[in-house]
Amino acid sequence: MLAVTIVDGQLEVREHPDPVPGAGELLVDVRAAGLNRADQMQVDGFYPAPPGSPPDIPGMELAGEVAAVGERVTRFTVGDRVMAIVGGGAQAERCLVHERVAMPVPDGISWPEAGGFPEAFVTAHDALFGQCRLAMGEHVLVHGAAGGVGTAGVQLAAAAGARVTATVRNESLRDAVAALAEHGRVLAIAPEGFEDHGPFDVVLELVGAPNLAGDLASLGTGGRIVVIGVGAGARAEVDLLALMARRGRIHASTLRARPLEEKALVTRGVEREVVPLLADGRVRVPIAATFPLAEAAAAYERFAAGGKLGKVVLVT
Amino acid sequence: MLAVTIVDGQLEVREHPDPVPGAGELLVDVRAAGLNRADQMQVDGFYPAPPGSPPDIPGMELAGEVAAVGERVTRFTVGDRVMAIVGGGAQAERCLVHERVAMPVPDGISWPEAGGFPEAFVTAHDALFGQCRLAMGEHVLVHGAAGGVGTAGVQLAAAAGARVTATVRNESLRDAVAALAEHGRVLAIAPEGFEDHGPFDVVLELVGAPNLAGDLASLGTGGRIVVIGVGAGARAEVDLLALMARRGRIHASTLRARPLEEKALVTRGVEREVVPLLADGRVRVPIAATFPLAEAAAAYERFAAGGKLGKVVLVT
Repeated sequence: MLAVTIVDGQLEVREHPDPVPGAGELLVDVRAAGLNRADQMQVDGFYPAPPGSPPDIPGMELAGEVAAVGERVTRFTVGDRVMAIVGGGAQAERCLVHERVAMPVPDGISWPEAGGFPEAFVTAHDALFGQCRLAMGEHVLVHGAAGGVGTAGVQLAAAAGARVTATVRNESLRDAVAALAEHGRVLAIAPEGFEDHGPFDVVLELVGAPNLAGDLASLGTGGRIVVIGVGAGARAEVDLLALMARRGRIHASTLRARPLEEKALVTRGVEREVVPLLADGRVRVPIAATFPLAEAAAAYERFAAGGKLGKVVLVT
Repeated sequence: MLAVTIVDGQLEVREHPDPVPGAGELLVDVRAAGLNRADQMQVDGFYPAPPGSPPDIPGMELAGEVAAVGERVTRFTVGDRVMAIVGGGAQAERCLVHERVAMPVPDGISWPEAGGFPEAFVTAHDALFGQCRLAMGEHVLVHGAAGGVGTAGVQLAAAAGARVTATVRNESLRDAVAALAEHGRVLAIAPEGFEDHGPFDVVLELVGAPNLAGDLASLGTGGRIVVIGVGAGARAEVDLLALMARRGRIHASTLRARPLEEKALVTRGVEREVVPLLADGRVRVPIAATFPLAEAAAAYERFAAGGKLGKVVLVT
């Protein structure tokens, strides 16, 4: 099979042996695989793949058709359309997926949408609901709302009955972000002065340390900040007395490093709560651009350039 | 009644009118009232009493006998021995307590012990179990373990089957802290180099910002830090990437500012889970010193001097 391959910090498309599914595993003919920030970090040598994943093939999410199944597979069969998060190796013609982390792709959802769905929606769902226990009627702040996790977070929060304030650096994308949740309450604003729009019950922090002081200052009583992205910086000064006064909390997490059973748990939650919304059009996966696998380097350049709405996806 | 009174940032003992119990309230003849750091902050003008509490009488915990009851009181009757957290006003001969935040004082528990129990044990119980969901077998770090909340936290964590590492500044108190949980697993150490004793699942931070970098560095996967005291400083630099890598969280809270219903909820949890341990001697309230109400200023001086094991309590 062909696969995007990290060679001395550069991307090439190279031939690899087909992986062989073990017990509980699906061999998936990949049709689409979304790009994520962690992929570029891996290419740059800062974020090695977890044990058990191909060390030199990036890609943490995919959609495709089941080509073969290992022993004791019960949830899917050859020919099924599936999508999943994986520890790595998704940007290839074929990839192994444990059946417990695979989700069915609803009818009517295109391959690029399915390939760009898992990482963003599992991450946003886990952050907002699993970690922060977001409740109907709360006020959510999403920083970096035009990106993959941001667009997912805005839609999920609105779908759950929350009010959303979304910061978007690129002015030309603000209307599109506000329109993501057609019947929801979403206000898209510039990042400057976001503190004046609080108090916020939940802050989905996808930008990083420079926002933390404002996040904390505008946090309501019992508020939760969840840090998922720190592209703009990771070292933040935190006023603990302010956090005490708000009885607040700061969560931070990544998805990739979690063990299989935790990934399966969060995926099952998304399959139960979010896939039905995807199927009936209440949430969608905005696609900024698609590139063929052979043009992976161009896709990474497009991803790094920013200023886009939604996902950059490789297709095979 | 006589009450410790804040007059221009100084403490005096002055005559005040007796308070009158309203619906659901107990008038308590105070027999003992513990000192807490927030009392000194209030005297210094940094921490005003919450609405509904006497603005000029400090004291956030007490034990005593019910002297009279308001309408619709059902849990206690005149003559009952009770102990409670209050928003303020405890350092007086009489104080109002809502019956939903009052707990019965077990037989055999002295007034100073009962008067020093509520704030420390409710705070530690809420932090460890309510906020951090401490589980049997986890490893807990308690910073500032010789103080009121610290001694409570060490005992509660050990009683719940956790392993405890406790930092104690005053070397002469380390053996006493280690002995607090007779049948538990408690290691008392100097604060310097505590990071080498991790990883920790839960950190009860009673000292403040200077510990935060070490708390984070020694936090295990899924670990929780809960900040309750910041006497040594409130502004901490937090490495968000390190917090992400551990999938950790930082909680921070105070007890005093919470509304009555939340105080009642946490108190009911302590009455159910901790008062039985107090009754049968499995946890105890170390008393560093007692002072008569008239010597409140000396009691505050003793409290501020530090280096003590357990509580400083005023008695009437």
